[in-house]
Amino acid sequence: VVEDEIEGKIADQTVLTEYRERLLEAAREAATAAYCPHSKFRVGAAVLAGRRLFIGCNIENDSYGLTICAERVAIFSAISSGCRRIEAIAVACLGVADRVASMPLPCGACRQVMAQFANGDLPVIVDGFGEIPLAALLPKPFRL
Amino acid sequence: VVEDEIEGKIADQTVLTEYRERLLEAAREAATAAYCPHSKFRVGAAVLAGRRLFIGCNIENDSYGLTICAERVAIFSAISSGCRRIEAIAVACLGVADRVASMPLPCGACRQVMAQFANGDLPVIVDGFGEIPLAALLPKPFRL
Amino acid sequence: VVEDEIEGKIADQTVLTEYRERLLEAAREAATAAYCPHSKFRVGAAVLAGRRLFIGCNIENDSYGLTICAERVAIFSAISSGCRRIEAIAVACLGVADRVASMPLPCGACRQVMAQFANGDLPVIVDGFGEIPLAALLPKPFRL
Amino acid sequence: VVEDEIEGKIADQTVLTEYRERLLEAAREAATAAYCPHSKFRVGAAVLAGRRLFIGCNIENDSYGLTICAERVAIFSAISSGCRRIEAIAVACLGVADRVASMPLPCGACRQVMAQFANGDLPVIVDGFGEIPLAALLPKPFRL
Repeated sequence: VVEDEIEGKIADQTVLTEYRERLLEAAREAATAAYCPHSKFRVGAAVLAGRRLFIGCNIENDSYGLTICAERVAIFSAISSGCRRIEAIAVACLGVADRVASMPLPCGACRQVMAQFANGDLPVIVDGFGEIPLAALLPKPFRL
Repeated sequence: VVEDEIEGKIADQTVLTEYRERLLEAAREAATAAYCPHSKFRVGAAVLAGRRLFIGCNIENDSYGLTICAERVAIFSAISSGCRRIEAIAVACLGVADRVASMPLPCGACRQVMAQFANGDLPVIVDGFGEIPLAALLPKPFRL
Repeated sequence: VVEDEIEGKIADQTVLTEYRERLLEAAREAATAAYCPHSKFRVGAAVLAGRRLFIGCNIENDSYGLTICAERVAIFSAISSGCRRIEAIAVACLGVADRVASMPLPCGACRQVMAQFANGDLPVIVDGFGEIPLAALLPKPFRL
Repeated sequence: VVEDEIEGKIADQTVLTEYRERLLEAAREAATAAYCPHSKFRVGAAVLAGRRLFIGCNIENDSYGLTICAERVAIFSAISSGCRRIEAIAVACLGVADRVASMPLPCGACRQVMAQFANGDLPVIVDGFGEIPLAALLPKPFRL
């Protein structure tokens, strides 16, 4: 049984590795559609859920508080398609290297939305930064 | 030229009529994916943009303020796909007739997001209510 | 009885007129505290509730979607102090005349929050624009 | 110089200890004003900034996404009063012990807003849980 479990994990890992680069590429591609007249900060995200891939970009609003991040757009797309768990998420920014000190990680709001649909071991793959589990970004998440 | 314009408008109108029922059906179908553990209020939306159809449902969060409405999920999906104008939006609620006095119209936040990507003549089609232009839901919208 | 009602309305009107200029002044003063590193757009708001005055300014966040408008900060302050109805709200922008075509009115999200704590006759007083009832800014508000 | 620094830190610590219980009491008191018709979940928060105390409660909206948490209301009140740094924040829930497995910690959105106005050593004091620095709740915060 243990071996089967290990094998299952290896298989999952292989699937994830296979998807990791595809997710990052999808995130980079998604960023090109960003609607960011105010920040000029183009972000893309890609979510793996149910072996399908969902994308999103950041979408700003003249009322800044109605802006939405790329990560949440991708997650919302997955949930709207009937998924209830996300298995991995990738994020990429375009042409931001010269504007920020380090590659930005997801904001607290996005981390909270991730926590609604994933456990702490969710792989968060950040272009130019690496992979980090959700639990390392949002320890002790708020839950009702 | 005037005739061409009129013809164009009639053609658009026909396209819209053709799409109206499809939009409502898509909105009703989208509502079945709603993630609403707190409100139990299932909403679906469908957006027509670039002759393509985009859908969304409401997605709640244990931190209520991170909840998103169906309308915005559908709009975000359209924008993420590269669209910059939405041409019509439909909204439908499931099994809500016995819980609310009248069919709910989009909230102020969704109206504001619609206004970012449409003019006041955007047709907002509400299941069980009818069609109303955005300008009648959000007069004098905030813009920067 | 009718006369009493009229007298009551006149009295209320007098109170409101008396407060109108004070509200606008409070809104202008509140705008000086605006935290707006991204938009540089300084907004202040003042709310009359329970004969008390509550103020707020816009407060931005590096994650734009976590930005809050001045109007909502003022309303939240009133509600946190135990008020459940707001009686009037004023909004003012500093040094915005040269940046926008017309004086901006509250965004859809703020209109919706106003509607939670006021009827359609809520006076919305906009510096440089005039007074407009909430119903003219958010007809047919969403309610559960 | 080192001794002065240490003395300064001890003094700050004493001030903080002195304020800790006052902050928690203020947070509990603030929770009584909570407007939570949907969740029935009453939360209060108190912020120490510039040696002044600011309070807030959670305020819900029929459009769930326009709900705001107690923590943010308290922070917004501080910023609107001209503060730019918060020095400590306390949170308390009323009558929630029997409804949740463990005392809820601030949501990701509130953590992000805290990070805008504090460093990682911000003391987050949670009633029935204890004190935890912000960095332990939101490691590697998003910043532009």
